[in-house]
Amino acid sequence: MIDQPGAPLRHRVVVVGGGFGGHAAVIGLAKAEVDVTLVDQRNHHIFQPLLYQAATASLAPSEIAWPLRHILRHQKNATTRLDTVIGVDVPAREVRLESGARLPYDTLVLATGARHAYFGHDEWEPFAPGLKTIEDATEIRGRILLAFEKAELASDPAERAAWLTFVVVGGGPTGVELAGTIAEMARDTLPAEFRFIETSRARVILAEAGPRILQGYDADLSAYAARSLETLGAEVILDSPVTHCDAEGVRLADRHLPARTVIWAAGVRASPAAGWLGVEADRAGRIAVAADLTVPGHPDIFAVGDTVTLSDSDGTPVPGIAPAAKQEGHYVAGLIKARLAGEPAPPPFRYRHAGSLAQIGRRSAIADFGRIKLRGAIAWWLWGIVHIYFLIGLPSRLRVALNWFWIHTRDLRLARLITGDPHEAIERARAETPEVEKRDAA
Amino acid sequence: MIDQPGAPLRHRVVVVGGGFGGHAAVIGLAKAEVDVTLVDQRNHHIFQPLLYQAATASLAPSEIAWPLRHILRHQKNATTRLDTVIGVDVPAREVRLESGARLPYDTLVLATGARHAYFGHDEWEPFAPGLKTIEDATEIRGRILLAFEKAELASDPAERAAWLTFVVVGGGPTGVELAGTIAEMARDTLPAEFRFIETSRARVILAEAGPRILQGYDADLSAYAARSLETLGAEVILDSPVTHCDAEGVRLADRHLPARTVIWAAGVRASPAAGWLGVEADRAGRIAVAADLTVPGHPDIFAVGDTVTLSDSDGTPVPGIAPAAKQEGHYVAGLIKARLAGEPAPPPFRYRHAGSLAQIGRRSAIADFGRIKLRGAIAWWLWGIVHIYFLIGLPSRLRVALNWFWIHTRDLRLARLITGDPHEAIERARAETPEVEKRDAA
Repeated sequence: MIDQPGAPLRHRVVVVGGGFGGHAAVIGLAKAEVDVTLVDQRNHHIFQPLLYQAATASLAPSEIAWPLRHILRHQKNATTRLDTVIGVDVPAREVRLESGARLPYDTLVLATGARHAYFGHDEWEPFAPGLKTIEDATEIRGRILLAFEKAELASDPAERAAWLTFVVVGGGPTGVELAGTIAEMARDTLPAEFRFIETSRARVILAEAGPRILQGYDADLSAYAARSLETLGAEVILDSPVTHCDAEGVRLADRHLPARTVIWAAGVRASPAAGWLGVEADRAGRIAVAADLTVPGHPDIFAVGDTVTLSDSDGTPVPGIAPAAKQEGHYVAGLIKARLAGEPAPPPFRYRHAGSLAQIGRRSAIADFGRIKLRGAIAWWLWGIVHIYFLIGLPSRLRVALNWFWIHTRDLRLARLITGDPHEAIERARAETPEVEKRDAA
Repeated sequence: MIDQPGAPLRHRVVVVGGGFGGHAAVIGLAKAEVDVTLVDQRNHHIFQPLLYQAATASLAPSEIAWPLRHILRHQKNATTRLDTVIGVDVPAREVRLESGARLPYDTLVLATGARHAYFGHDEWEPFAPGLKTIEDATEIRGRILLAFEKAELASDPAERAAWLTFVVVGGGPTGVELAGTIAEMARDTLPAEFRFIETSRARVILAEAGPRILQGYDADLSAYAARSLETLGAEVILDSPVTHCDAEGVRLADRHLPARTVIWAAGVRASPAAGWLGVEADRAGRIAVAADLTVPGHPDIFAVGDTVTLSDSDGTPVPGIAPAAKQEGHYVAGLIKARLAGEPAPPPFRYRHAGSLAQIGRRSAIADFGRIKLRGAIAWWLWGIVHIYFLIGLPSRLRVALNWFWIHTRDLRLARLITGDPHEAIERARAETPEVEKRDAA
């Protein structure tokens, strides 16, 4: 076995989190005279923008996720560590790990991301899972597919209708993409396969608390997206925040929707990184970093991506999307290199918005590049090319392109496996609810 | 919603199990004037001969498993039901389902398969999972990958060595294929990715209770396979039945092997179908069916595949492999059709052995066709072509072929995701072991 090198210690950078921000920081340091350690609690990097396709059986999980070790294998100054960070010992400059080990750092980069948030109602989570991990995607995929199976077996019409009602909460890009894909699956992929139900009659509801979906987009494009969703057979319900959620369905502002499948795409909450440092966080748990992405009061600790809240010099908030996290990670790498070289500090971080893209079903999309706005088939092609371009490696690009080809030409969605027990979380929540509450709820 | 048809009832065939045998029976009845219901507790058909590739990160689960509904979508007389059979009410001619429903049948086909068996030591299962389902494959994949991660983090040399020791129990085709692939992964795929361990020094041990591996093959081919495995870096240990198995490793006849990853490929036990009928079964739980594959005393109940034990007219036992199950399912469909047409019964079932193929690493295989025996690269090509041919659908064939291309040319194994907690079963078993026993074992 190889021992750790006995050479004089180089500057040690510890990066926590191998998502877009952390990965960009690590590869940005590839040629620097530093030792980089990337710590992640999972062994893989996920291409988040296509995670909804894994949740809807369009792509296999391994087509949008790659082992971190694999994508960093040629970067000799980088070490990958599968472990969970439980805290930071700031005075000692050490990251504390669940395994008991401590990782000393000279510079620390926190790129720990976010989980979905339930606005103070964490008890809704078992009934309305969100989509951040491969496990989330597999569970949601299982729930969607199982709902059609249960509907096929149901003899009671109300029960059958509840199994055939899918509610996606949150009208951002992920919510739109999920609702569009479920509607398409029900209308195009599944009808020939069932004998007792008409899957095309499934209700797919996109519930948005605000006055329109895709609020980050131009109003025209967002209206176009709503119309397109309705053409696909989905219903868009606006101005309707969720007020309750359980195994029977959801309550929107003024109505109860009996639904056995609810997916949460409504809000996120940053990881507990702020707590590790004992610094202030906003309501969503995000650290308000300085313009050079350092944590206030900690010049050697950077934070990027969904861990932070940040505004441009003109006051526009930097959006919580993959390109922003990548730019931030890249910026931090550059700043670390400048510091080590004794060069003057680079100018403050400035987010360059390349544009926004969202798919609406398998033949349409919207693209918002500020002055240039596209929609329909042309936007879809652009969306497809851009997403394939950003995948890692030729094999993944070919596999995803091939899958999309079959989806387009033959309505095939091949990753339709129900594995494990997708309702396990619901069963567990039920078992933990005291009998009294159950009776009250009934 | 569509109601069940009110037309006069046709002959009802219920097939339990959508593996090779059950699937062949269903499609064999495609043009018959019958109503077929296929019941399976999972929504997918698995291509078992390549399941070990899903367990070793070479293929994605959805590349070797297809939704049963999808593969039967064009067969109008077939209905698929996702449910678990809990019994058969023979006098009433009904299959009892976990959902509470009962399925009436005129003819019943039991194709319920087998699980792995621990020779009376079911307590070994958490420490030495077997490979029959997609969940099994995902768990084994997670354990193999996690073992390298844990070894990379381990500071104690003995602990590190135990994480880098992989024991595959059982020298049949699955055991050989698993051991060969793990050895290759350790030697070719992973070395560049780790910093503190040399993955190529991992010990991969194939432990066989009998005097040689691949006992179903010609002795020369089996000796060749053993040599090939050793060239790949695996160790073959013969005449060594497992006598104990726990979280620390396995005890073979005369020695204890400290190993944190043990995979069971040693024995199978048929599903409880015999119990449902109250008929006799052999030690492995298999029903001794008549030469026309009916269950003795039950002329309207057939059993096929791993559910049965059967010998050819010359006394040779029919092997428990995919082609045998397919031939049996096909035979049963033909017999049912002959009965309905009032034709004379077809001659007794006769198994036609087409040949045996086993892969040994990604560049070699053995093929035993009786008089013709092949080995090495030529056998590997044959193995690859045959397996791709038997996959369902062009998309799967292309995806698998592409993956094998990358594995061959670039040592890429892309499905290397650790998901869930692969050691959950071990933790559970530990939690359930009384403290006294733990002390005794220590």
